[in-house]
Amino acid sequence: MNIPRTSFPRVVIIGGGFAGVALAKKLSKQEVQVVLLDKNNYHTFQPLLYQVSTGGLEPDSIAYPIRKILKDFPNFYFRLANVDEIDTEKNKVVTDIGKLKFDYLVVASGSETNYFGNSEIEKHSMAMKTIPQSLNLRSLILENFEDALLTSDLNERNALMNFVIVGGGPTGVELAGALAEIKKGILPKDYPDLDTRLAQIHIVQSSDCILKGMSDKASKKAEDFLEKLGVNIWKNVRVTNYDGKTVTTNTDLTFETATVVWAAGVKGATIKGVDAEEFITRGNRILVNEFNQVKGFNHIFAVGDIACMINDEFPNGLPMMAQPAIQQGKQLGDNLLRLIEEKPMHSFKYKDKGAMATIGRNKAVVDLKRFKFQGIFAWYVWMFVHLFFLIGFRNRMVVFVNWVYNYVRFDREARLIIRPFKKRLKT
Amino acid sequence: MNIPRTSFPRVVIIGGGFAGVALAKKLSKQEVQVVLLDKNNYHTFQPLLYQVSTGGLEPDSIAYPIRKILKDFPNFYFRLANVDEIDTEKNKVVTDIGKLKFDYLVVASGSETNYFGNSEIEKHSMAMKTIPQSLNLRSLILENFEDALLTSDLNERNALMNFVIVGGGPTGVELAGALAEIKKGILPKDYPDLDTRLAQIHIVQSSDCILKGMSDKASKKAEDFLEKLGVNIWKNVRVTNYDGKTVTTNTDLTFETATVVWAAGVKGATIKGVDAEEFITRGNRILVNEFNQVKGFNHIFAVGDIACMINDEFPNGLPMMAQPAIQQGKQLGDNLLRLIEEKPMHSFKYKDKGAMATIGRNKAVVDLKRFKFQGIFAWYVWMFVHLFFLIGFRNRMVVFVNWVYNYVRFDREARLIIRPFKKRLKT
Repeated sequence: MNIPRTSFPRVVIIGGGFAGVALAKKLSKQEVQVVLLDKNNYHTFQPLLYQVSTGGLEPDSIAYPIRKILKDFPNFYFRLANVDEIDTEKNKVVTDIGKLKFDYLVVASGSETNYFGNSEIEKHSMAMKTIPQSLNLRSLILENFEDALLTSDLNERNALMNFVIVGGGPTGVELAGALAEIKKGILPKDYPDLDTRLAQIHIVQSSDCILKGMSDKASKKAEDFLEKLGVNIWKNVRVTNYDGKTVTTNTDLTFETATVVWAAGVKGATIKGVDAEEFITRGNRILVNEFNQVKGFNHIFAVGDIACMINDEFPNGLPMMAQPAIQQGKQLGDNLLRLIEEKPMHSFKYKDKGAMATIGRNKAVVDLKRFKFQGIFAWYVWMFVHLFFLIGFRNRMVVFVNWVYNYVRFDREARLIIRPFKKRLKT
Repeated sequence: MNIPRTSFPRVVIIGGGFAGVALAKKLSKQEVQVVLLDKNNYHTFQPLLYQVSTGGLEPDSIAYPIRKILKDFPNFYFRLANVDEIDTEKNKVVTDIGKLKFDYLVVASGSETNYFGNSEIEKHSMAMKTIPQSLNLRSLILENFEDALLTSDLNERNALMNFVIVGGGPTGVELAGALAEIKKGILPKDYPDLDTRLAQIHIVQSSDCILKGMSDKASKKAEDFLEKLGVNIWKNVRVTNYDGKTVTTNTDLTFETATVVWAAGVKGATIKGVDAEEFITRGNRILVNEFNQVKGFNHIFAVGDIACMINDEFPNGLPMMAQPAIQQGKQLGDNLLRLIEEKPMHSFKYKDKGAMATIGRNKAVVDLKRFKFQGIFAWYVWMFVHLFFLIGFRNRMVVFVNWVYNYVRFDREARLIIRPFKKRLKT
């Protein structure tokens, strides 16, 4: 990779997610050379992917060109690259566009969908971790309704209008709520010749509550909201397989469906070279110390979802969410500069800013440290916080316009099958 | 196709472009059953596709779900279908989702890129007639710059930064202007480590002027504007081939380039069954009479780009543009109702509302019947007219927000490679 060597130490960051971008920003205008590698040329605001899938937002408004985030920073280099391996002996990263030597390396490669080893589920179900995946899901949902019109086989039509979401975390809950609103507000108008009452939305949750990381009150209220919207919640049920037609579970319950969204878990997206057993812990994450250092190295770090930092409050590691990633990225920026100046680094302390999830119009749940609230005020807070954390003024404006429009008109207009996902049924 | 038969006559429309949608709207709330078939579930506002390609707009804001356009109309049916054939003997359309009988048929299948039989050009060059094509072009442009960073071969780098647009019509001119503004305003910031002065934009035009259908003044001024923006215009040069690396012409001139955009011509997108020699005229279009009737039929019509209606003013047929399509669609709506009521139909009279093209910020050319003007006022008129003809309040708002933002910030933010188009170079 032809990146010039300067007298500044080179920090290579793998991944332009929340952690990688926060770190790169912190290192800007400092006496370091920063090379950010990502397989996309954009940063994805993952918390809003479900709105792309359900036609509420355009993909471009929740993504942001990485080059633009960092365009005013000297000594900053971006390369579109897949990292294949980290050579910890020679201090090099090996990518599909060549090798690159580093002085400091930060692994911020994030997480990927965890199918817990079930390749059939992986093959047949939809994930929602990236923009292309979210667009595929959008296309599939819309194609299903078009196909439901074509078939005269009632079982097939039911399967096409049956949506099974596996996992009752924020992703599953928000997607289910959005689908329920589409069923209520859009399907009857768009498909007057289809009995859209047949459309069913299911959440299958292996434990005894949804939104497990949140307060009991939030979990209970979210369940109420979803039930009011007509979503079926199946608790204490674990999905065992999906062959493309039938979902089987550890109970008698089965679902005939053309659409399974797998939101049941994520795991660290490890990279060869730091994936040996000595580095990896629960959830396929890289174990780090309080300075985000990877075991055995002074100059190799991991931040965000890929990093597992354990403390008394979080014996299984910090949650895999935006906030720990952003905070770790910022702190590591400071620490790297301290390390370079041979000053002692500061331990990372996670400031829990709470958690929130939206279920539908005027319906959200928010857990802050001191306050827990649900309903319309929570919904406004949810919107404000998400707009605030979006990168870019244009993105905020466009998302805001869309939200106001969708709210006033009970609509979601971005329902275009721009890239068909499945082959059409023939009848 | 399971569409119920009612006592109303059935009008089948093939294609949801400007003509098809204008016709369907006109027939709404009338005593006819309307079945609209399209291979996409959205209507595309083609005049703004070049802004999708150049990162100025999101695809979702220039497309609109067909079902939504017509959602309040009773007796309206939409089906996502590819029409394979028209059986004019049995009065049926044959599609990939089944057959459908019609009482009246309207072919509004539009136009497609005309490569004039050169399959090498077709294989290697980019077209810009559909949203997926425009997104592919956007990805390719951005991928080229990423790849230009990676190569140490100067010829290869030049080829990656060399853009050849074949055809100096509105599409070619508008795309060239947008690329020139990207070169000037965005590349130097996004790619500080690349000598973006190397980026070259060429228009190759086979005749002696650009914007041939417009006034001499508009053509001349557009040329001035483009030259000020640094676009190279090659007139009286005809491209003879492009093998993926080198563009050859009928002169000594050749171009080494990784990107050829073919905007040199369109032709009617005919359908089997009405594509026999007796029906087809210049430009692969279906010859129609003054009522848009196809020769030999009382109940089969063609409108828009696919229809070639000849009159004294337009001996080669009406221009393949939005206005004739919209006007024909509306008029045919009236005529169909008259035909059903056994009243005489009215001849179509084209009202030429003029033509316009935009070159860049504050730079456009407008030819109206009485006034011809260029520059900043023309640019405002161009924007106003395009916003006005966009379908949907949300689309107008989002496009407006983007335009204001792009204008104020000299920026185009939708520059994301969401679906990579080419395999990456390996270095």
